[in-house]
Amino acid sequence: MSALLSALRAALGDDAVATGEAIPAHRLTDWSGVPPVRPLALLRPRSTEQVSAALQLCMQHRVPVVPQGGMTGLAGAAQPLAHGVALSLDRMQAIEQVDAATRTLTVQAGATVQSIQEAAAAQGLLFGVDFGARGSAQVGGALATNAGGNGVLRFGMMREQTLGLEVVLADGSVLPMLRPMQKNNTGYDLKQFFIGAEGTLGVVTRALLRLHPAPSARTTMLAAVADYEAALALLARLQRRAGAGLAAFELMWRDFVQASLAWQQLREPFDAPHPLLALVDLDGPDAAQLQTALEDVLAPALQERLVLDAAIAQSEAQARAFWKIREATAELPTNMHPPVNFDVSLPMAEIGRFAIACRAALDARWPGHASVFFGHIGDSNLHVSTDASTIGGEVEALEQLVYGLVGDFAGSVSAEHGIGLHKKPYLERSRTAAELAAMRAVKAALDPLNLMNPGKIFD
Amino acid sequence: MSALLSALRAALGDDAVATGEAIPAHRLTDWSGVPPVRPLALLRPRSTEQVSAALQLCMQHRVPVVPQGGMTGLAGAAQPLAHGVALSLDRMQAIEQVDAATRTLTVQAGATVQSIQEAAAAQGLLFGVDFGARGSAQVGGALATNAGGNGVLRFGMMREQTLGLEVVLADGSVLPMLRPMQKNNTGYDLKQFFIGAEGTLGVVTRALLRLHPAPSARTTMLAAVADYEAALALLARLQRRAGAGLAAFELMWRDFVQASLAWQQLREPFDAPHPLLALVDLDGPDAAQLQTALEDVLAPALQERLVLDAAIAQSEAQARAFWKIREATAELPTNMHPPVNFDVSLPMAEIGRFAIACRAALDARWPGHASVFFGHIGDSNLHVSTDASTIGGEVEALEQLVYGLVGDFAGSVSAEHGIGLHKKPYLERSRTAAELAAMRAVKAALDPLNLMNPGKIFD
Ligand SMILES: Cc1cc2nc3c(=O)[nH]c(=O)nc-3n(C[C@H](O)[C@H](O)[C@H](O)COP(=O)(O)OP(=O)(O)OC[C@H]3O[C@@H](n4cnc5c(N)ncnc54)[C@H](O)[C@@H]3O)c2cc1C
Ligand SMILES: Cc1cc2nc3c(=O)[nH]c(=O)nc-3n(C[C@H](O)[C@H](O)[C@H](O)COP(=O)(O)OP(=O)(O)OC[C@H]3O[C@@H](n4cnc5c(N)ncnc54)[C@H](O)[C@@H]3O)c2cc1C
Repeated sequence: MSALLSALRAALGDDAVATGEAIPAHRLTDWSGVPPVRPLALLRPRSTEQVSAALQLCMQHRVPVVPQGGMTGLAGAAQPLAHGVALSLDRMQAIEQVDAATRTLTVQAGATVQSIQEAAAAQGLLFGVDFGARGSAQVGGALATNAGGNGVLRFGMMREQTLGLEVVLADGSVLPMLRPMQKNNTGYDLKQFFIGAEGTLGVVTRALLRLHPAPSARTTMLAAVADYEAALALLARLQRRAGAGLAAFELMWRDFVQASLAWQQLREPFDAPHPLLALVDLDGPDAAQLQTALEDVLAPALQERLVLDAAIAQSEAQARAFWKIREATAELPTNMHPPVNFDVSLPMAEIGRFAIACRAALDARWPGHASVFFGHIGDSNLHVSTDASTIGGEVEALEQLVYGLVGDFAGSVSAEHGIGLHKKPYLERSRTAAELAAMRAVKAALDPLNLMNPGKIFD
Repeated sequence: MSALLSALRAALGDDAVATGEAIPAHRLTDWSGVPPVRPLALLRPRSTEQVSAALQLCMQHRVPVVPQGGMTGLAGAAQPLAHGVALSLDRMQAIEQVDAATRTLTVQAGATVQSIQEAAAAQGLLFGVDFGARGSAQVGGALATNAGGNGVLRFGMMREQTLGLEVVLADGSVLPMLRPMQKNNTGYDLKQFFIGAEGTLGVVTRALLRLHPAPSARTTMLAAVADYEAALALLARLQRRAGAGLAAFELMWRDFVQASLAWQQLREPFDAPHPLLALVDLDGPDAAQLQTALEDVLAPALQERLVLDAAIAQSEAQARAFWKIREATAELPTNMHPPVNFDVSLPMAEIGRFAIACRAALDARWPGHASVFFGHIGDSNLHVSTDASTIGGEVEALEQLVYGLVGDFAGSVSAEHGIGLHKKPYLERSRTAAELAAMRAVKAALDPLNLMNPGKIFD
C-alpha cells in the first residue's frame, strides 16, 4: 500500500493524495445517509492524464477505486471502500467551450451542474437538466446516475443531453468519445454504457453536452386539484394545448406541501388545504401566447371544477416562490431523522392508486408516521420520503413494504437516483436474471479485475 | 448441417425454414449493392420463443446468424453468410398496443416503420422517425442501425424514441427490457447496447416506442440561398423564431435538385437554378401562427438577399410536391449505376467548405463525374452519392478520397447508415484503438462464440 501511495504522489503531486484525517468528512458518505467510510486515500487529479495514471497504478496494485462527484447522490453509490481509494473530480471543473452556433458545451466532469447552467445562460442558451442539488452535484455524478429532475418532460435526462464523453477505463485507457457531431453511427455507441453506470465501468472525465435555445418567455402556474385523476386530466389538456411548450409538471401531495411550508416558513398558497398541487411551467418565444394558453386551459377547467383553484405567477419572484414549495427536498435531511427516500417509477395511470395504497399501508403499520409524496408525474416518477424516527427506525421493513407495492403495481425501484448500495437487495424486482447476467458480463468485459466502484449496483 | 436444419424445422415448422432456391432474391443482399450471398437457410420465426429456440440451436451447432429486417440498409450489414443462416423478422409484424394516454406503442420488430407511423396517426399521435425507406424498413432494422432521417432535428434518432426493447441474445436467452416507464435507472441501461449495434449483439424482437402529440398544423417552405453560410444563418433565424416548432431543415445542393427533377420529371420550383434549396417544416398547434413565424423570418431575409427566393406551401399537395424533390433518394439505384453513397457527419460550421472541397477534388480526379450533395444539415449530416459508372468504377479510390477529406475535416464516416461491411476499412478513421478494443470486449461478453452477424462493423 505505501508503495502505491508513493507512486500516486509521484504521479499526481503530493497535494493530490490525502490520507487519514486529511480526508474531509464530506468525502466519506453521500446524501443518502449510508455510514461514513474512510478510504485508504483520497485522490484529486487535475487532468485526464492524471486520472489515467492513477487508475493504472491502482490496477497494478489491485486496489479498487470509487469515483466521487459532489457526494449528493441518494443511493450510497459514492461511498468509499475502506480497502480502496476515492477519486474526486473536484479539481477538474473547467468549462472548456460553449459553442453558441452548434449549441454545445464541452466541460470537465467535475464542474457543477449549476456552473454549466450559468455558462449556457450567459450565451442565451439553456442546459436541459435541473434538480435541487445543482449547486454541488457535478456533471460526472449526474451522468453516472443519469440524473433527471425538473426538465425531463421537455428535454429528457442526462443521457438525452449527451453528445460525447471522455472516459477512463479501469486499466487507464482513455476513450475519447467527444466528436462534436450530433449523429455518429460508427460502431457501438460506447458512451451510452457509462451513463447511469454509477461509476462501475469507468471514470467520466469530460462531456460534450447539448444545449437548447433559452426560451424568451416563461409562465409558472400553481393549480390545486382534488385527486390524481384530475391532475392527469390537467396534464393531458396542457400537453394538447401547449405541446412542447410544457416544460414542467410537478405534483405535490398535501403532506408534502404542508411539510414544505412548515420547514421553510412559507405561507399557504391558497385559502384551502387542497389535496394536490400541480406546479406547471410553460415556456416559448412569447409571454402573451403562454398566458393565453394557460388561460385557455384554466378557464374551462375551473368552471368544471377539474381545477379547484389556481394562480398564475405575475412576476419572476412569484414564480420562484411557487418553485420554492417544490424545492423542499433540500430540507429533507434537516427535518427528517433521517429521511428514507424512495424514487420509484410506475405506469403513469397507476400513480394515484399507488399513492393511496402506499399511504394506507404505512398508516396501518406505523400510525403517526411522517411521509411526504411528490413527483415528476409527467415522467411517471414518484418520490416518497419517510422520517425514519417516526417508524421506529424500521427502515428495512419500510423498504420491503414500499418495494413490495411497487412490484404489485409493475413499477421500477429506481426512476432517477440509481441502485448504488441502497437498492441492491431490490434490483432483482426490476430486472430479470438474464438481464443481471448480461450486466455482469459487460462489467467483466470492461473491468475484468472488478476494480471500478465494486459492490455498487450488484455484487 | 442437416441435423441443424431438421432441428430448426421441428422447432419452427417446415414453412419457417427455406433453403437453396426457395430463399427469395431480396434476402441475399441489401440496398447497398453488396454482392448477393445465399445462406445455408432462411428462418422466418413467428414469435420471440421461436427466435430464442432458433438461436439456441444455431449456437449448439456453432452456426452464425444474420438478423434481417426489410433489407433496405445502405451498409451491407444484413448481407447473409454462406456458412450461416439468415433470420428474417418479417412474420413478426404485430402492433401489439398503442397507448394514447402514455403515448407509447408496443410492436414486434418486423413491423415496418410506415405501419407504426400509421398506427400512431390513427390515434392522433406521431412517430418521430421518418425516412424514405419507411415502407420496407422494419422497426428492428431501424433500431439496429439507429436510423435517423427527416425528424431528427425535432425528435432525435431511433435511440431517442426507444423506451424499451426485447432482445434475444446469441445463447437464446431473452432480455425483456420492456417496462412501460419513462424513467428506469436500475443498473445498466442494457437496451442502449443493442441500438445501432447492427445485429451483432442480439436479435431485437419487440420494442416499446415513444410517440408524440401530432401537431395539428404544419407549414412547409422551400427557400433558395446562395451559399451554405446563408443556409446556416436561415436555420439559426428559424430556430430562434420557431424554437421546437422547427421540425425539418433539409438542404439540397443544385446537383441534387437537378438530378431529382430530371429523374422524377418534376418542374423547377423557382425561375432560376439557385445554388442551394432548403426544405423547411414548421409545426405546432396553430396554422396561422406558423405562417406568421415563417413570414417574420422570410420578409427580412428576402430583403437582405439572405434568401434569394422562397415559396410557402399553400396546400398539403404543394407541401408533398416540395418534399418529393427531397425524396429522390429512392431513385438513386435506378439512376446511378450503381450509386456509391456517403453518409458523413461533420462539424456543422464546416459542411459548406467540405462540400466545396469534396466537389473540387472529385472534379479534378474524375472530370464529368455525376455526384449529388444533400443532407440533414440541422443534424450536421451530409449525404453524397456518386454514380460509379462515371468514375470508371473506381469505388475504392473514391472512398479513399472522400473519407480522407472527412478525416481532414474531423468528421465521422457514418452519421446514420452504420458501418456494416462497407465502411469497415474506414471505421478506425472515426474511432481510436482503445474504443475499438472496448467494442470488441463488449461483443465478446454478449456473444462469446461470435455467432451474431459476425464480420459486420469489425472483424
Ligand atoms: C436535494 C437533492 C435533490 C435531488 N433531486 C434530484 C432529481 O430531481 N432528479 C434526479 O435524478 N436526481 C436528484 N438528486 C440525486 C442526483 O442523482 C444527484 O444529486 C447527482 O446526480 C449526483 O451527482 P454528484 O456529483 O453529487 O455524484 P456523487 O453522489 O458524488 O456520485 C454519484 C455516483 O456517480 C459516480 N460518479 C461521480 N462522479 C463520477 C465520474 N466523474 N465518473 C464516473 N462516475 C462518477 C459515483 O461513483 C457514484 O456512483 C437529488 C439529490 C439531492 C441531494
Ligand atoms: C431510400 C432510402 C432512404 C433512406 N433514408 C435514410 C435516412 O434518411 N436516415 C437513415 O438513418 N437511414 C436511411 N436509410 C437507411 C436505413 O438505415 C435503413 O433503411 C433502415 O434503417 C434499415 O432497416 P431494415 O429493416 O431494412 O434493415 P436491414 O437492411 O434488413 O438490416 C440492417 C441492419 O439491421 C440488422 N437487423 C435488422 N433487423 C434486426 C433485428 N430485428 N434485430 C437485430 N438486428 C436487426 C441487420 O442485421 C443489419 O445489420 C435509407 C434507406 C433507403 C433505401
